[in-house]
Amino acid sequence: MNNSQQNKRVYLDWAAATPLSDRPFTAMEPFLRVHYGNPSSIHQEGGRARQAVNTAREQIASAVQVKPERVTFTGGGTEGNNLSIFGVIESTKQTGIKYSDMELITTKIEHPSVIGAVEKLRQLGVSVNYVNVTDLGLIDLNHLQELLSDKTVLVSCAYANSEIGTVQPIRAIRKIIRTKEEEAGTLIYFHVDAAQAPLWLSCQFDSTGADFLVLDAAKCCGPKGVGVLIQSKRAKLLPVTFGGGQEQGIRPGTENVSGIVGAGIAIQDAQSTFRERADKVTRVRDEGIAYLKEKLPTAILNGAAGEDRLANNINISIPKLDTEYTAVVLDSKGFAVSTKSACAGAGGGESKVVKEISQDSGRATATLRLSLGPETTIEEVREAVNIIAAHTERMQELTQ
Amino acid sequence: MNNSQQNKRVYLDWAAATPLSDRPFTAMEPFLRVHYGNPSSIHQEGGRARQAVNTAREQIASAVQVKPERVTFTGGGTEGNNLSIFGVIESTKQTGIKYSDMELITTKIEHPSVIGAVEKLRQLGVSVNYVNVTDLGLIDLNHLQELLSDKTVLVSCAYANSEIGTVQPIRAIRKIIRTKEEEAGTLIYFHVDAAQAPLWLSCQFDSTGADFLVLDAAKCCGPKGVGVLIQSKRAKLLPVTFGGGQEQGIRPGTENVSGIVGAGIAIQDAQSTFRERADKVTRVRDEGIAYLKEKLPTAILNGAAGEDRLANNINISIPKLDTEYTAVVLDSKGFAVSTKSACAGAGGGESKVVKEISQDSGRATATLRLSLGPETTIEEVREAVNIIAAHTERMQELTQ
Repeated sequence: MNNSQQNKRVYLDWAAATPLSDRPFTAMEPFLRVHYGNPSSIHQEGGRARQAVNTAREQIASAVQVKPERVTFTGGGTEGNNLSIFGVIESTKQTGIKYSDMELITTKIEHPSVIGAVEKLRQLGVSVNYVNVTDLGLIDLNHLQELLSDKTVLVSCAYANSEIGTVQPIRAIRKIIRTKEEEAGTLIYFHVDAAQAPLWLSCQFDSTGADFLVLDAAKCCGPKGVGVLIQSKRAKLLPVTFGGGQEQGIRPGTENVSGIVGAGIAIQDAQSTFRERADKVTRVRDEGIAYLKEKLPTAILNGAAGEDRLANNINISIPKLDTEYTAVVLDSKGFAVSTKSACAGAGGGESKVVKEISQDSGRATATLRLSLGPETTIEEVREAVNIIAAHTERMQELTQ
Repeated sequence: MNNSQQNKRVYLDWAAATPLSDRPFTAMEPFLRVHYGNPSSIHQEGGRARQAVNTAREQIASAVQVKPERVTFTGGGTEGNNLSIFGVIESTKQTGIKYSDMELITTKIEHPSVIGAVEKLRQLGVSVNYVNVTDLGLIDLNHLQELLSDKTVLVSCAYANSEIGTVQPIRAIRKIIRTKEEEAGTLIYFHVDAAQAPLWLSCQFDSTGADFLVLDAAKCCGPKGVGVLIQSKRAKLLPVTFGGGQEQGIRPGTENVSGIVGAGIAIQDAQSTFRERADKVTRVRDEGIAYLKEKLPTAILNGAAGEDRLANNINISIPKLDTEYTAVVLDSKGFAVSTKSACAGAGGGESKVVKEISQDSGRATATLRLSLGPETTIEEVREAVNIIAAHTERMQELTQ
């Protein structure tokens, strides 16, 4: 990649990774360069590091409006999802309930870290029930109501789907869960994978209704390798990793101090201005989608519209097109896009998410995801669409 | 802490945390500031990140002389130890062997991350046998031989103890394990927690005899939040976290690219010059210990001597002295030391390690650890000893 090419890059893969903003980097640098103490050490160097971790915890607590002790730092979103799901099941098991007497509800369109953890629990004997999603990717609330039982211990879903951007009605889900809890006299925990949320949606904790809310600093302009797990007052979690008593014993291991410092600022900044950011980008997204429909009438939009769609997500299927190759062509012309979620593998194959909402393999193997950034312009999106449209036309001519 | 105080700090807590060296930081910075792609993405930004992760993997592979595919990046030493121990037990379970038919051998002086994981397995039904250690903290090889059985699936110990610095005879341990394997026709995996090793000991993988070797970048001048797990060819491990297929599925989650880049350089640099570094610091250590014995005849050295002791470790007990307070006094005079391992908690209480080797609570509650850096001078150590000696005298006068 030479410099002139690099200069004109248009990065439209914000769902996979975001740049680290200046403010988090500036705050991190001293903790990489100067203040290298272990937060568990009793000397000044340790105290300085402990103070920094505490400050970051307070920043996040304030951003999502919980008490600092409800904030746990993890190694990323994947770890946070695994810890929530395994931790609550293990905690329930400790009360004397067998795996085989527990039920868990999720969807088939979750992130691989949720799908994977849930599948492991299924192998251990936990009953896993998949709630239906609509053709827009929205959870079927009636079906959820039907699935909830006296044995349900956990409901898990994403706040916003990382591939198709569908935003779940998490407050409505919580309400349905609460009704069942009152009726059955049980506790049903609600785990929300909010990795895609902080830049675009309110993560004010009480309003999400979650018992476990998982964030990932790397998806909101913070550093990679740091996640956050926020728990409700009633939440009970057993650790899945053992060691020193760090993070109240829930996530032991020497704290990644500089990363945590960056995460604190990034999540604070993401949430303090999410509304303006989302409004601005939603307009670019919607203009982009309209332009797409005009230039590429065969393209099918995957996911919901309006407020049910993440502000920065455009996900389409172009039936019969090799979109993997299309992404490579776009890349060669300076546009970074993806076909599906990075964690779902770059190596081709169908999108499980689009397959589930459409039951259409053709549509699921021909997806393209453009995930915009706060500064992405409509001109950039139009240019990408023009390349996709021209390429599609060329491919159609070749195969005729 | 004002500037003049900060300027004259003498940091003697290298076992708890090390400064990040210039070379790793310089290599990391572009991956914090410019190249923010997700290594699983197919575009140039993703490719650049993937390449960086691959390079770091090759650097570590070359440093410890294994093939790159045997190197897995984790979130730190604690995670690496947990992953090794749980992963090998789960992998054995998958072959149809019940927890209750598995035996595991370790010592009572291991790091909390090993002790904690092993205790969890004990709760699940795995038989845990603790091999005796001598009063110097060395594993009793005869006892090990006795404990090894047809049911033993794992032996776990530290390369060098993080508190008292005793270096285990890991090649001799491996030989005993091998003999038992041949006799019983079984596989007995050997997990070595080498978090304290890279700056001071050879981690050339084959010579360690380990099946699982765990490193932590933060303990050898790399960044916090990155660990490395190196596996033998025959090693089999099931993941304990589930998600995308990153790190061959063993440790999923978006890679901490900048951290991994820093870890690659740090571990490479640590190993390429460990011998000179160790020789130099061993001299300071031994002069320091001699000076200590002269100035403070009541002090008891914890751990072994000569080559059986980590080059940078001085750990003493000063019976009846409140060493927690002594560390605070040293801190106020510019010296950062600790009483035990940071992960074992800064909050007082006896050292489980020293208790185990001495069976003496008085000695175990009165520990002080000075862990030196490559540039620590004998003058600095002497000055610290002078403060300790003067303080001890003052305390003795007060209590008489």
